[in-house]
Amino acid sequence: MPDPHLTPLAQSLPSTVPFVGPEAQERARGRPFAARIGANENVFGPSPRAIRAMQDAAGSVWMYGDPENHDLRQALAAHHGTTPDNIVVGEGIDALLGYLVRLTVVPGAGDSVVTSDGAYPTFNYHVAGYGGQIEKVPYRDDHEDPDALILRARQTDARLIYLANPDNPMGSWHQGPVIEEMIAALPESTLLVLDEAYLETAPAGTAPRIDPDDPRVIRMRTFSKAYGMAGARIGYAIGAPTLIGAFNKLRNHFAVNRIAQAGALAALADQSYLKEVCSKIAATRLTIADLADQNGLRALPSATNFVTVDCGADGAFARRVLDELIARDIFVRMPFVAPQDRAIRIGCGTPADIEALSQALPQALNAARSGGR
Amino acid sequence: MPDPHLTPLAQSLPSTVPFVGPEAQERARGRPFAARIGANENVFGPSPRAIRAMQDAAGSVWMYGDPENHDLRQALAAHHGTTPDNIVVGEGIDALLGYLVRLTVVPGAGDSVVTSDGAYPTFNYHVAGYGGQIEKVPYRDDHEDPDALILRARQTDARLIYLANPDNPMGSWHQGPVIEEMIAALPESTLLVLDEAYLETAPAGTAPRIDPDDPRVIRMRTFSKAYGMAGARIGYAIGAPTLIGAFNKLRNHFAVNRIAQAGALAALADQSYLKEVCSKIAATRLTIADLADQNGLRALPSATNFVTVDCGADGAFARRVLDELIARDIFVRMPFVAPQDRAIRIGCGTPADIEALSQALPQALNAARSGGR
Repeated sequence: MPDPHLTPLAQSLPSTVPFVGPEAQERARGRPFAARIGANENVFGPSPRAIRAMQDAAGSVWMYGDPENHDLRQALAAHHGTTPDNIVVGEGIDALLGYLVRLTVVPGAGDSVVTSDGAYPTFNYHVAGYGGQIEKVPYRDDHEDPDALILRARQTDARLIYLANPDNPMGSWHQGPVIEEMIAALPESTLLVLDEAYLETAPAGTAPRIDPDDPRVIRMRTFSKAYGMAGARIGYAIGAPTLIGAFNKLRNHFAVNRIAQAGALAALADQSYLKEVCSKIAATRLTIADLADQNGLRALPSATNFVTVDCGADGAFARRVLDELIARDIFVRMPFVAPQDRAIRIGCGTPADIEALSQALPQALNAARSGGR
Repeated sequence: MPDPHLTPLAQSLPSTVPFVGPEAQERARGRPFAARIGANENVFGPSPRAIRAMQDAAGSVWMYGDPENHDLRQALAAHHGTTPDNIVVGEGIDALLGYLVRLTVVPGAGDSVVTSDGAYPTFNYHVAGYGGQIEKVPYRDDHEDPDALILRARQTDARLIYLANPDNPMGSWHQGPVIEEMIAALPESTLLVLDEAYLETAPAGTAPRIDPDDPRVIRMRTFSKAYGMAGARIGYAIGAPTLIGAFNKLRNHFAVNRIAQAGALAALADQSYLKEVCSKIAATRLTIADLADQNGLRALPSATNFVTVDCGADGAFARRVLDELIARDIFVRMPFVAPQDRAIRIGCGTPADIEALSQALPQALNAARSGGR
């Protein structure tokens, strides 16, 4: 029986969660994974300087973090060539997406929000959780489809369009000018949420040129991916000062961990380490693609820290491959929605991770082809 | 001009924030504070074991934290004699209060929420931010007033009553049985939000006996105060499984920092350190009370990690004392609302902090009495 204290919306929401963590799977299996390459984490980790900064900050964790995230916003502004007023720092992109939906969607009013069917489920989770109406358009050739997104936004008078560039879970991307054209075509009442969580690992030319004061778009960035600090929960958004300032009306001002603030500052300052990690990720993408090829599978081109590998049949088959990999202690995930769910998503692991994968993959494929376990 | 992308509620919200951080004040002053005893932080810090656990976890921050907070919930359940299903861990009590308001208040529907005038402003911030209607009752003899809270809840058919025991900003407290009677008197549709952030520093007998499965009350606890980890952003709520489970419908599942999870586990395990810190806090409360007495002021009895000191006149005078202390590099805060604002709130600092305070206080009082600067 639902708790009568809950609102009708809260009562109506499902108890499903976007992602089950690898730890929960390990507990259910009763043993740990040998390779943790399923959550788009960065196995190469943060800059040693960031680790040191976090260790040094541990003793001062009795103090709240600076609620204005002043020093980090200054550094990010210098890094991006904006003013600090263009930047809001939050407890991860997930939290910032939640705040943004809350700022723009009236609960239960039929406000529509457009995304791609199979794109980031945590965004949809927030839209549903704030009583918005999700509108989904299909991927096109494994890419999010700007034209279809714009069209649907126009048809539904959408408050937001969500687009990740590069994309998760497919690893695909659009060139910057494609995004620029998309912004030019936005309906007047629609804000583009451009999730650039994976931008640092993308080829040059992926970033659109956007005036940071442009009120039509807000960009999401994070220290969780290329910077290797997923567990620190720290991300940021770049946008016009009026919109960015509105986050101050409802965000949890003290929510960013003080140790994470110190780590992010140090990570940002170590751009040569970032470059090095991005090289390792790019090299690992090629290794995974080779491995897929050797096993008769097709790796999709990727601009992210994972490679989506087409298993060559339907979703049921890919699910069997995934389950067989998990049974062999390789933690991977897969797209949720057809036809993208014909693939599995393999993170750029360490050499040891990839070695473990190379042992497990042929066996998993054999087992999957013989009908599963 | 407001951003047209914002909802009417978002447009209507003020840009004021509940608290300005000490760092912002330091930046404005152009110099650091000598004593940071204004934010109810615990200057004695966390257990050395917790610090070590956090330092050890820094290198694995490339992994997301466990979204189920499984290990910590298990440990907390054992500590409190509940099941893990009675406990939700979140990114600080502030976040949990926000989720709770979101779960129980229908935006713009006139849903009322009752609190004490001058109690925790971040709770009010969430109620306003989620479109609820705040109802305030006065303190009574510097204590939150259970009878008045219940009466107002009955009159307004309130969704929630907020009560902090011990109280912030007055440091006062009720005995457990008073809270138990209050729960028995709750209107059927009203949930009691019992904020026990300061419970660990309170005298024995302050905790009410509550069946963890009691659906009428939810208790908030934190690692920010006695455990000395304010900057880690980790707290938890204890309540009936149906209500606790509802948080999973809308909380940010991955929001808790992985380093904080490790630190909280280690801090919880070191109860002897906690006891030692609570003794230091109790001793420091007496020292502050003596110091107040020596300066002709009256310290209110406190069950928290701060002492609220009656400056003996009106709010304007207390404000002058506060400003004069700040001018002498002592960071303190004061209650926002009359008649509580006749006092200033002094945190239990280190011996060095209290020494600095003892130097500054007589000067600040003199300056305040001569009409301020």
